[in-house]
Amino acid sequence: MYRNDGFRELNRQESLQRLANAPVGRIVHTRDALPAVLPVNFILEESGAVLLRTSASSELVRAVDGAVVAFEADEVDAVTHSGWSVVVTGLASVVTDPGEHEQLVRTGPRSWVPWPVEVFVRIAPDLVSGRELVGGRTLYGLDPPT
Amino acid sequence: MYRNDGFRELNRQESLQRLANAPVGRIVHTRDALPAVLPVNFILEESGAVLLRTSASSELVRAVDGAVVAFEADEVDAVTHSGWSVVVTGLASVVTDPGEHEQLVRTGPRSWVPWPVEVFVRIAPDLVSGRELVGGRTLYGLDPPT
Repeated sequence: MYRNDGFRELNRQESLQRLANAPVGRIVHTRDALPAVLPVNFILEESGAVLLRTSASSELVRAVDGAVVAFEADEVDAVTHSGWSVVVTGLASVVTDPGEHEQLVRTGPRSWVPWPVEVFVRIAPDLVSGRELVGGRTLYGLDPPT
Repeated sequence: MYRNDGFRELNRQESLQRLANAPVGRIVHTRDALPAVLPVNFILEESGAVLLRTSASSELVRAVDGAVVAFEADEVDAVTHSGWSVVVTGLASVVTDPGEHEQLVRTGPRSWVPWPVEVFVRIAPDLVSGRELVGGRTLYGLDPPT
């Protein structure tokens, strides 16, 4: 959250409401000591945690399990220059409890590639921040509406 | 770039072509030792470098100047589940040459907030990667078209 660039800050509840309705977000992490970012689908749990489902053998899982990551979603209308951005920052961890895993197979995000072995990755909502583009002002350095 | 999740890899030229047409991207960096991500507008230079314009006093500038960052743009259609994602990774640096700065004031990305003092930040295209959602397959774990 950067405070000197003309946005309206969203509170935690407002941020999570927007995130809950986003179809896709981006997991921001470190890979081979470099910043990395990957769009993924997800669901938002009631706690505000972000839940992903992916291949157990994926490089993404190896890169993020046990690491603090950021998860970002946004919606920006390039014509009207309105929109918002929300970031959840926290520890990412693979769900290892077999019972919980089985439950998430039914209730968690849908997996649409038939991965041979799937895992769920949860990102704890330790920090939640959000910002909104207020009409006529700029949030991202975008053009104000004309 | 993760190779085991069912996407078509884009080459450098394909990646930069898509990036050039994206209205907004996301600068992925480290802030206070945590992963951070911020949507920003930009232009893509012929070299493939990403150029941003922002306030000289912004926290973003302090966080990224002299650091290796990633810059991501994507376009995902949640209905058809088609789309792409491109990431440029490289050193971010504030343009300090006065002559170049003056030129960029005219030719660089437009700044629409009247920052008291503006700077340009360039991200070198040291690594360029991209991936595309191929129809009927999933790139991001999204539903295949029904």
